[in-house]
Amino acid sequence: MVSESSGQAVGAGALLAILRDGQARTRAELAQLTGLARSTVSQRLDALINHEWIVPTQDTISSGGRPATAFAFNRSARIVLSADLGATHARLAITDLGMTVLAERAVELPIDRGPEPTLTWLVTSFKEMLTETGHRLAQVCGIGIGLPGPVEHASGRPVNPPIMPGWDNFPVPEWLGERLTAPVLVDNDVNIMARGEHWVTSPEVDHLLFVKVGTGIGCGIIADRRLHRGAQGAAGDVGHIRATSSVDALCRCGNAGCLEAVAGGASMAAKLRDTGLDAANSRDVVRLIRAGNALAAQVIRQAGRDIGGVLAAVVNFFNPSVIVVGGDIAEAGEHLLAGMREAIYSRSLPLATQHLSIRASELGDRAGVIGAAVMVVEHVLAPGTVDQTVMV
Amino acid sequence: MVSESSGQAVGAGALLAILRDGQARTRAELAQLTGLARSTVSQRLDALINHEWIVPTQDTISSGGRPATAFAFNRSARIVLSADLGATHARLAITDLGMTVLAERAVELPIDRGPEPTLTWLVTSFKEMLTETGHRLAQVCGIGIGLPGPVEHASGRPVNPPIMPGWDNFPVPEWLGERLTAPVLVDNDVNIMARGEHWVTSPEVDHLLFVKVGTGIGCGIIADRRLHRGAQGAAGDVGHIRATSSVDALCRCGNAGCLEAVAGGASMAAKLRDTGLDAANSRDVVRLIRAGNALAAQVIRQAGRDIGGVLAAVVNFFNPSVIVVGGDIAEAGEHLLAGMREAIYSRSLPLATQHLSIRASELGDRAGVIGAAVMVVEHVLAPGTVDQTVMV
Repeated sequence: MVSESSGQAVGAGALLAILRDGQARTRAELAQLTGLARSTVSQRLDALINHEWIVPTQDTISSGGRPATAFAFNRSARIVLSADLGATHARLAITDLGMTVLAERAVELPIDRGPEPTLTWLVTSFKEMLTETGHRLAQVCGIGIGLPGPVEHASGRPVNPPIMPGWDNFPVPEWLGERLTAPVLVDNDVNIMARGEHWVTSPEVDHLLFVKVGTGIGCGIIADRRLHRGAQGAAGDVGHIRATSSVDALCRCGNAGCLEAVAGGASMAAKLRDTGLDAANSRDVVRLIRAGNALAAQVIRQAGRDIGGVLAAVVNFFNPSVIVVGGDIAEAGEHLLAGMREAIYSRSLPLATQHLSIRASELGDRAGVIGAAVMVVEHVLAPGTVDQTVMV
Repeated sequence: MVSESSGQAVGAGALLAILRDGQARTRAELAQLTGLARSTVSQRLDALINHEWIVPTQDTISSGGRPATAFAFNRSARIVLSADLGATHARLAITDLGMTVLAERAVELPIDRGPEPTLTWLVTSFKEMLTETGHRLAQVCGIGIGLPGPVEHASGRPVNPPIMPGWDNFPVPEWLGERLTAPVLVDNDVNIMARGEHWVTSPEVDHLLFVKVGTGIGCGIIADRRLHRGAQGAAGDVGHIRATSSVDALCRCGNAGCLEAVAGGASMAAKLRDTGLDAANSRDVVRLIRAGNALAAQVIRQAGRDIGGVLAAVVNFFNPSVIVVGGDIAEAGEHLLAGMREAIYSRSLPLATQHLSIRASELGDRAGVIGAAVMVVEHVLAPGTVDQTVMV
């Protein structure tokens, strides 16, 4: 099959797209899979070997007896730098092309300091991590960044991010690209978490939602194994859907009764403060629940029901197979998921919930950095991009 | 670019996939677009010409002066039979491969008569229409059927359809295929309407919803220009999402407060009956609104607000560019859309509604038959299918 939109002959990227699954293949197999002549396959393989994207292996025995050389994708060909920047803390990682984490760093870092201080720290930290692990900047094939707000897909710039003062329209890719001399990809934090969780734990699932419950509430959507961003890149903003239980709570968006105003981390903390407990933010909620506080358990379970009420509508509309729940509060125990399950199973259609799995994130707080690395690798290994690099 | 999953060399279907846009192309152009050798292109074109899928044209002038033969897709190569079966009425059509309607028939036909009487009538009618238009059964490349209930995608069988007694698990494709000797594709009626409207009126739109408001309320989803069915094929069932205005109305699904129980055609008719008006079903609602009845206008507008309240959540989650509204009640005037717009624009996020278009179906009651034809043509012209037929 040849893509209708492709005006180019089959390039080296197409060979790499086939080899990425990790299985080694011979020239003959690659010729058969692509419809290319053996001589063309050899020529393109040479270019890929020169750039270290693939390595020849000798372990395949052809039917004739003489061992045929097979070629395999080289996961260590390049490294990826990735960062998951949250409202108050940041996590950085170096991974290989197979998304194995080679080095990691997690720190407190308030995003409201603004872009230049935050990104200056990022550059310094990445350089330190490269030195510590014995890597060079030249080995970096790309940098993936997750931000806690809406990001315009085409430019990689934040768009009116509510909790990121000073970041609106800041040219994150250009600023970082100049200092780290590699392509930079930026996306919303929930989108990269959805990618990470899907890639590592559920690659065989077609339709998956990743719901993050923290200070805010957001959702990353995998439709047909790809990220669904929607027309304005605004898809997944479930935090501002009207919750059914309380229509009066004022939301920072200007509307009343939004899910985030009813069941977000800040709202949970406020409810606990009302009972005299010491709870300033969602972290305190997590601390209280970990300490076995019954009131905190009650508040979180009700938040789960409210979130589940909104997700019941989403389940009827979208019919996913898996809902993954992540974020601080989900990691603090089963209360949130119990409330969510209660509401979803009672309100969604039987056909849509028959095989629906609702589970906590397996990657936990690593979902973001791994997803950012997935975003980079998918971009870098796309046929067009590799061809530009390899076929000079 | 070559698909990873394709184990075959580039076949005749790939040439057809390129030519389907209606533009004629020369051998040289096709060789360049596919990366195939000129001799291979010629061989595959000959096979396609033999099967009448394409026709040679002489009107292209090559740069050298001698006219080069160009090849164009032959829309008249085959015909498609399509049927949109509703709860109480049916519409049949014969179209060419460009979705031009060559013949049409619309009749009263209650679906609750059961599958055999309904489908027997269908076979007789299709044969009559073929005779009337001077076509033969051998010219039919496929048959597309829309049914008013859930359909299992893989088998084309209805699955527990609530308003179709006797149809559960009936082998519609096999039954019709035996009698009409052509491949049969079956889908839910709202799915085919979404396909039809997208293909004809908005092919450049990535994310579109088709909302049908009749006795029931359903939604067809186009995500990334393709139909989104969800994990169990249950996606788009917005009729059983909880409406915010009334949580008490009992629904036929067993839950209370479902959108359909609050704002479906049957519910509207009941509300009008309560005021002493003669309204047995959604058709009577349409009759009253067409007669200028103010109470009917009020009831429909409120239904629009209720539907808009649910769609506001869907807009935040999915971020479509276009919402098309179809079905009897939408066709009766602007009251329904006015109520829907009111609720969606007041409850959805500004970013998601900035460029959102909410409009009535342009295809009207033809959306179903045209969409059923689109489904057949996409299936028949898919590279694998054409190659099986052509490369014998």
